[in-house]
Amino acid sequence: MQIKNSRSLNPPERILLGPGPSSVSNRALNALAKPTIGHMDSYFLKAMNETMQMLRYVYQTDNKLTLPMSGTGSAGMETVFVNLIEQGDKVIVCVNGLFGERMVDVANRYGAEVVTVSAPWGEPINPQDVSRALQDNPDSKLVAIVHAETSTGVNQPLKEISEMTHENDALLIADMVTSLGGIPVKVDELDVDIAYSGTQKCLSCPPGLSPVTANTRAEDVLNNRDDDISSWYLDLSMLSQYWGEDRFYHHTAPVNMVYGLHESLLQIVEQGLEECFTKHRVLGGALQKGLESMGFNCLVEKEFRLPQLTTVKVPDEINESKVRERLMQQYSIEIAGGLGDLEGKVWRIGLMGSSCTWRNVVSFLGALKEILIDLDTELPYEDGLEAAADYYKSTAQNDQL
Amino acid sequence: MQIKNSRSLNPPERILLGPGPSSVSNRALNALAKPTIGHMDSYFLKAMNETMQMLRYVYQTDNKLTLPMSGTGSAGMETVFVNLIEQGDKVIVCVNGLFGERMVDVANRYGAEVVTVSAPWGEPINPQDVSRALQDNPDSKLVAIVHAETSTGVNQPLKEISEMTHENDALLIADMVTSLGGIPVKVDELDVDIAYSGTQKCLSCPPGLSPVTANTRAEDVLNNRDDDISSWYLDLSMLSQYWGEDRFYHHTAPVNMVYGLHESLLQIVEQGLEECFTKHRVLGGALQKGLESMGFNCLVEKEFRLPQLTTVKVPDEINESKVRERLMQQYSIEIAGGLGDLEGKVWRIGLMGSSCTWRNVVSFLGALKEILIDLDTELPYEDGLEAAADYYKSTAQNDQL
Repeated sequence: MQIKNSRSLNPPERILLGPGPSSVSNRALNALAKPTIGHMDSYFLKAMNETMQMLRYVYQTDNKLTLPMSGTGSAGMETVFVNLIEQGDKVIVCVNGLFGERMVDVANRYGAEVVTVSAPWGEPINPQDVSRALQDNPDSKLVAIVHAETSTGVNQPLKEISEMTHENDALLIADMVTSLGGIPVKVDELDVDIAYSGTQKCLSCPPGLSPVTANTRAEDVLNNRDDDISSWYLDLSMLSQYWGEDRFYHHTAPVNMVYGLHESLLQIVEQGLEECFTKHRVLGGALQKGLESMGFNCLVEKEFRLPQLTTVKVPDEINESKVRERLMQQYSIEIAGGLGDLEGKVWRIGLMGSSCTWRNVVSFLGALKEILIDLDTELPYEDGLEAAADYYKSTAQNDQL
Repeated sequence: MQIKNSRSLNPPERILLGPGPSSVSNRALNALAKPTIGHMDSYFLKAMNETMQMLRYVYQTDNKLTLPMSGTGSAGMETVFVNLIEQGDKVIVCVNGLFGERMVDVANRYGAEVVTVSAPWGEPINPQDVSRALQDNPDSKLVAIVHAETSTGVNQPLKEISEMTHENDALLIADMVTSLGGIPVKVDELDVDIAYSGTQKCLSCPPGLSPVTANTRAEDVLNNRDDDISSWYLDLSMLSQYWGEDRFYHHTAPVNMVYGLHESLLQIVEQGLEECFTKHRVLGGALQKGLESMGFNCLVEKEFRLPQLTTVKVPDEINESKVRERLMQQYSIEIAGGLGDLEGKVWRIGLMGSSCTWRNVVSFLGALKEILIDLDTELPYEDGLEAAADYYKSTAQNDQL
């Protein structure tokens, strides 16, 4: 067989302002490159313990069962459903974006009877709709909801929905892929029973691991199943025996990816979680101010808008893919378009983790302005940078950034 | 929450001579640390294509559907079963070690009716037993077998079993986790329908990905299922739309792990696959000669012995775990003990990929001798190093190593 002239890769240095992956710090990249050791090596076991402890910190939980699954965020989604669902279980899934839809697909595949509660893409789920679904389906075992919808940028309030879920003796599943490390997730305070996330969003670790956390209520369901869970690879009971004190071999852990996650988490610990939240809030707010001042409208109402992921509507006058192409080619800046019905109609701009810097806000707004001028766009836009800077300076001062 | 004083990790530099992970070259480690880019970035799409092409090279196949799953080797095992099995399908699983047992577990979880064909741990599966099972179960859809049993070191001949499987219109699944890149796997020549592997064995990439390859016969089964496969994450039809020309987003690929795999494969391409096989054969043979000359007996008969993974019986006079502990503490060399019934009775010594060097053979045999002397072991062992060197020099000369 003939192999074409492959060479070592030299990936370009992008500014990653899409909905993930976000830019990874050199510290975390270098951690990936540290020598591989065995998955039962005492040094690695210690690193696993530290990683779990730091994951509890970012999840704002004391849950013992808190560990990274050996797959990306979607593996985390599958993990919670395959572990909790038994054939025929009734599950209420809230759908207001692509990842809600994906939860429906996954729950169906594992034999759940799915009841959906919907809201338009770009709007949050209305707790009253969940309440009605619970009344109509009092035998529901689970309520599943996306905390930060990556396809729209909606920040979903969880408190009321959590309360009504538990009043109904159901368990609450939350998709925290884009929220973890970016906004408060408060797993314990909000009484979320089981949550999953990804590493490539606000944790700014490369994609490949999915941190999962489960409280004792979820553990009880896990331990009292009638039959084996379908997935051997994602079996949380077996995995918790490897990550827990038993150290029972399950599969060979992705050692170097755990190094990377450890270092990413350490950077958050050093910075302080509250400081991380402030950073995302202030800089996300500045970006949104800037875009609005240029004449763009955000898809999501201010109250429910994520700071770390902004979705703006693109007016018909602008060729949205052309602008993204120019951003990439001329500035090596990545942002994303819309998914599903939003394709061609919005941009999704992430300021997550290491990507969330004032310099990136400035670079992006400046580049966008230049490209729009260059394309002879006839929008009556003002200077976004100035509005963003005003907001940043006033807010950052208050927040002592 | 109080975080204990976590610091950046500084893993020790081990010589990894267990059954995986093997030592990773600096080139591959450094590739992991290259800048993360988006999973839809045109540069990454090109890197994916090259990776697939190099995977075809090591799998010795032209199979279009050849890609790395975003999980470790066990995720690969689950991939083949979840994609090919429908509820109630009859599957013949060959069991002569832990990974055969795991296949039974996985196939059962996905609703297969499993027929097992067994051989004692340390012996190959007898094709006549498979033939009988096929005769007794002419409605079998799949025959699954481990090509290189990591728990015992058995090299399983596949030719006859492949022929009888196809005469019976069944498909052959092969676990090539420990064989890929170490011994010829000849997926096309042997007409293996679907195979999976891991990256942390003879490819010497860190654990985290599972290369899978499937021929058109397997693809047909995939495309003609009656129902959705249970697993969304491991759905090969959807994944092949992302890795293929459609570039349809499935999940965020583990970008940096793919960099690492690309570089590991590139090193094999540069060295040449045949040269890789020779290296494993000669150095594995030298290690086995050395151990035998010291008085140890291999678990597996010479004809069926893997060169890249040697299992030796540990006499009762030797405290096997004590020796492994000393190897680790005094020499930073990792080898493994036995699993299941072989626990406490054998050592498993890997010479895989980057770990497969003459220097490592010398280091290990020398360290082992020193430790045995130190522990006052009263075995009438000769000098293993000399025997190994004799073998190495004579064989390497013939093989022009």
